[in-house]
Amino acid sequence: MPRTDLLDFFDSPTTRGYLIEHVNEEFTSVCPKTGHPDFGSITLRYQPQASCVELKSLKLYYQSFRSEGIFYEAVTNRICDDLVSRMSPAWLQVVSEWRGRGGIRSRIVASHGTVPDAFARG
Amino acid sequence: MPRTDLLDFFDSPTTRGYLIEHVNEEFTSVCPKTGHPDFGSITLRYQPQASCVELKSLKLYYQSFRSEGIFYEAVTNRICDDLVSRMSPAWLQVVSEWRGRGGIRSRIVASHGTVPDAFARG
Amino acid sequence: MPRTDLLDFFDSPTTRGYLIEHVNEEFTSVCPKTGHPDFGSITLRYQPQASCVELKSLKLYYQSFRSEGIFYEAVTNRICDDLVSRMSPAWLQVVSEWRGRGGIRSRIVASHGTVPDAFARG
Amino acid sequence: MPRTDLLDFFDSPTTRGYLIEHVNEEFTSVCPKTGHPDFGSITLRYQPQASCVELKSLKLYYQSFRSEGIFYEAVTNRICDDLVSRMSPAWLQVVSEWRGRGGIRSRIVASHGTVPDAFARG
Amino acid sequence: MPRTDLLDFFDSPTTRGYLIEHVNEEFTSVCPKTGHPDFGSITLRYQPQASCVELKSLKLYYQSFRSEGIFYEAVTNRICDDLVSRMSPAWLQVVSEWRGRGGIRSRIVASHGTVPDAFARG
Amino acid sequence: MPRTDLLDFFDSPTTRGYLIEHVNEEFTSVCPKTGHPDFGSITLRYQPQASCVELKSLKLYYQSFRSEGIFYEAVTNRICDDLVSRMSPAWLQVVSEWRGRGGIRSRIVASHGTVPDAFARG
Amino acid sequence: MPRTDLLDFFDSPTTRGYLIEHVNEEFTSVCPKTGHPDFGSITLRYQPQASCVELKSLKLYYQSFRSEGIFYEAVTNRICDDLVSRMSPAWLQVVSEWRGRGGIRSRIVASHGTVPDAFARG
Amino acid sequence: MPRTDLLDFFDSPTTRGYLIEHVNEEFTSVCPKTGHPDFGSITLRYQPQASCVELKSLKLYYQSFRSEGIFYEAVTNRICDDLVSRMSPAWLQVVSEWRGRGGIRSRIVASHGTVPDAFARG
Amino acid sequence: MPRTDLLDFFDSPTTRGYLIEHVNEEFTSVCPKTGHPDFGSITLRYQPQASCVELKSLKLYYQSFRSEGIFYEAVTNRICDDLVSRMSPAWLQVVSEWRGRGGIRSRIVASHGTVPDAFARG
Amino acid sequence: MPRTDLLDFFDSPTTRGYLIEHVNEEFTSVCPKTGHPDFGSITLRYQPQASCVELKSLKLYYQSFRSEGIFYEAVTNRICDDLVSRMSPAWLQVVSEWRGRGGIRSRIVASHGTVPDAFARG
Repeated sequence: MPRTDLLDFFDSPTTRGYLIEHVNEEFTSVCPKTGHPDFGSITLRYQPQASCVELKSLKLYYQSFRSEGIFYEAVTNRICDDLVSRMSPAWLQVVSEWRGRGGIRSRIVASHGTVPDAFARG
Repeated sequence: MPRTDLLDFFDSPTTRGYLIEHVNEEFTSVCPKTGHPDFGSITLRYQPQASCVELKSLKLYYQSFRSEGIFYEAVTNRICDDLVSRMSPAWLQVVSEWRGRGGIRSRIVASHGTVPDAFARG
Repeated sequence: MPRTDLLDFFDSPTTRGYLIEHVNEEFTSVCPKTGHPDFGSITLRYQPQASCVELKSLKLYYQSFRSEGIFYEAVTNRICDDLVSRMSPAWLQVVSEWRGRGGIRSRIVASHGTVPDAFARG
Repeated sequence: MPRTDLLDFFDSPTTRGYLIEHVNEEFTSVCPKTGHPDFGSITLRYQPQASCVELKSLKLYYQSFRSEGIFYEAVTNRICDDLVSRMSPAWLQVVSEWRGRGGIRSRIVASHGTVPDAFARG
Repeated sequence: MPRTDLLDFFDSPTTRGYLIEHVNEEFTSVCPKTGHPDFGSITLRYQPQASCVELKSLKLYYQSFRSEGIFYEAVTNRICDDLVSRMSPAWLQVVSEWRGRGGIRSRIVASHGTVPDAFARG
Repeated sequence: MPRTDLLDFFDSPTTRGYLIEHVNEEFTSVCPKTGHPDFGSITLRYQPQASCVELKSLKLYYQSFRSEGIFYEAVTNRICDDLVSRMSPAWLQVVSEWRGRGGIRSRIVASHGTVPDAFARG
Repeated sequence: MPRTDLLDFFDSPTTRGYLIEHVNEEFTSVCPKTGHPDFGSITLRYQPQASCVELKSLKLYYQSFRSEGIFYEAVTNRICDDLVSRMSPAWLQVVSEWRGRGGIRSRIVASHGTVPDAFARG
Repeated sequence: MPRTDLLDFFDSPTTRGYLIEHVNEEFTSVCPKTGHPDFGSITLRYQPQASCVELKSLKLYYQSFRSEGIFYEAVTNRICDDLVSRMSPAWLQVVSEWRGRGGIRSRIVASHGTVPDAFARG
Repeated sequence: MPRTDLLDFFDSPTTRGYLIEHVNEEFTSVCPKTGHPDFGSITLRYQPQASCVELKSLKLYYQSFRSEGIFYEAVTNRICDDLVSRMSPAWLQVVSEWRGRGGIRSRIVASHGTVPDAFARG
Repeated sequence: MPRTDLLDFFDSPTTRGYLIEHVNEEFTSVCPKTGHPDFGSITLRYQPQASCVELKSLKLYYQSFRSEGIFYEAVTNRICDDLVSRMSPAWLQVVSEWRGRGGIRSRIVASHGTVPDAFARG
């Protein structure tokens, strides 16, 4: 199971609403149907309210999917849920983009709250 | 006949509305008029309500067009109909883009439900 | 004379309103003033109501302009008229783009019906 | 501590509202968690009201972060706060973009006042 | 079996040694191990001695691999052998490039006779 | 028949050996097998000895292939032969590049005399 | 341990010397020092003598490095050794390219036999 | 007539052999056959021996071709001759490149003396 | 002083001669004349004989230049000397490239032993 | 007069022969004929023997051309001479590239000693 216990947070250094974006181009998990590894990138965007996710802990949390058999759709919503429940951001968006498997490449966009227009397409 | 029986679905891992996009750049069918093969890509975008299409089954479903004599327009609407009837998505869009034949390249866009503005051109 | 008799149509495979786009990058006709050949591309976009133009017949129809002495403006509107009168589409747009002649390159856009905003510029 | 005493300002040469943008592609600070250096760029945009930041003093102020252990989020908001409190601009935006660490690259956008739509994404 | 009987040849219009190159970007065959379709491009280069391969017949010959279960290496050498034995060219080179399968993309180069340095890498 | 009588020549303005290159991107002829038009570009390079081909006459000569049913290989060698026999250049090279037909695009290179290394590939 | 037992070979379909290149852009192993995952691509090039490596077995062999703690240099030479000892190719080259770790990206090139000049740099 | 009297020269500031290159992208003359203007660029390269052409005088000299009815080949050799006879350079090369006329674009290269390999193609 | 004691080495996993390249795009030191920070990249290439530099230790060694007042030329030769004396490679090359300072950007190349032609320019 | 007295040198940190390259993209001087400013870049490459030019002093020396009325050719050779006489390098090359003036852009290359082939063109 992806390990949310690895996630670490720190108090936002301001009460101002602002944008944070972290792009991980080295994400890998396992296809639950074929057992073959999946490779992709995860883009996380959010506006913090009180707390922010610490970057090294985010990396370790992402790495905990490495041996997980899990669909693209579940990866994306799982990350969205895990971070929303722990940080209560004003809004949050997770975009996963996956290298081709069987000639098909995919993109999944899950959002929480009102994402600004500029990110509407994901 | 394209084999909808190959399509497999799984429950969406969330009740949240989110975006799924699958791009297949290795689609081929046969021109019903000349008998020559057609080559193109199929982009599928949708917002699931309760179920999602499983990726490997989608690949096999696409491959079942390989020997089918069928017009571009019919391919595109057929895929749209087959997936809408099985998944009842909030909205769904199929864009097919075809390499040139006789010096003409083509693009067909079929949509179901209210597609967000960002995808209006297809 | 361009031969509309070469055009062939088939019933749209659906009653849904959808988009069709055919791009021909190998169009040639003859300048009626100088007798020199003109080279360009023709982009056809439309939303079918009941019938669609068959691709090979469209190619042959385009080829029938090969020896025609005809201005850019007439080519564009002629194709628009020929296809509208035979297919009665919801809307249709023809964009012709011409390689330079005498250092000037040109683009002509003719439309029928209400073209969606996304294509309004041609 | 970053040294705001290094910042120098001069009177805006006009009462007109106008845009100023300074991009520093050679910013470095230290990760407070791992002790490793962070590398990034800082883009500062603002509309002055009465005073402007002097460029060489801005460079020295930025250099004073060189040995500072400080999170990306704090760097960005700190610069925003320091400049707003000293210049009282009509609006001001700080965008920090960070080279990858542990395979993750980041972007933080902090704004003060009403930033024009063109910069909404940061 | 790929159908060499589809290949048609015509007399070279000159006794001069010259270069011919045909690039087919729409090649497809079937993986003999997994049964899944393979997609790639075939580049054929040769210097004719007495006869040349006719282009439409070459297309039909290539299409006859469509349902063939055959490795990349065998496709490439098979095309090389079939054309060499029928045309006796001064030299001939076949380069196949394959879209990724299982995350791996491939390129095979088979040559007959002395290929000029400019084409040695394929 | 392509009309060599349209070709016009003028005395080279110097006895110096030098390079001339003319690129025609608007060449069209007809496939002798299918009757469909072919589209391509013709690059002519040569070192004159006593005479040069006049550019407008070259254009008209090229246009005289417009209704000719002729293979790529024959077009290329025919142009090479026609110009060599009329100009006796030190060396001459004709490169024809053809847009795809049936998914295959082609390039033919015919040369007379010793083409400098820099142009050997065509 | 990387599992060479997963490697499968087939007889080369010809006695002709020819070039085979397989590029895997989804390679991952583990850093033996930090325990963090490494991501890179592996390019394999060789000229077969009697046998060729089967593509799906190569993929599985590469996947067997997924949980292996192993340096870049050892990965590259290990793959080189494993394939040389099993296939006895005329020559073989392995190029690994690694995404940045700690701000440093790397490339390792190991070769067996006489690699043609065109590939000498890797 | 192009006015060589406009050309001005100055003593080379050194006896060392070195390279000078002037690129004029705004050259225009008149086609002697059609009377239409031609547009192109002139690249001049040379190694001076004792004198160099002054840049403003070179511009005025180039401008004196504006109303001249003259072939591409003559322009190029004329410039080559005019400059060689006045400057006696170690070597000199003139490359003219012409925008399309009648769908044909051209390039002419005239050289005097031994041009270094690096510039041999023009 | 840069700390060579941080450098760690491991035995080359093979006696084969092969190529290793590490590119660090996040190097910073201090100008000994102005006291301002310098930013650049360091490319290290070598062929090991018996030992290889461990990547994390190389990163820490590079980081030890962070507060060092040292010229570009000295950085480059210092790295070259430090690594040669500890690893005795067959050959080794260090290329440093520096972002502009005072409008001037620089590149320094220091080599030990016979660097293959492909890398001679650095 | 350009002020060579501003140039400062330091002892090369090694007796090894190595390459140094400084690119200044902000050079300006004055045209001696028209009085208009010229803008260009100066690339300096050399292999030091005993001494190196200090970067800030090089910048100040370059800046001393700002009000100088001087031809491109003289700028380039002057810099070459000034640096050669003060540093006695193994070889040295100065390449100046000038933004267009009157529609003509220029490049001058002056060299001292035997420049390696890789830099022969400048």
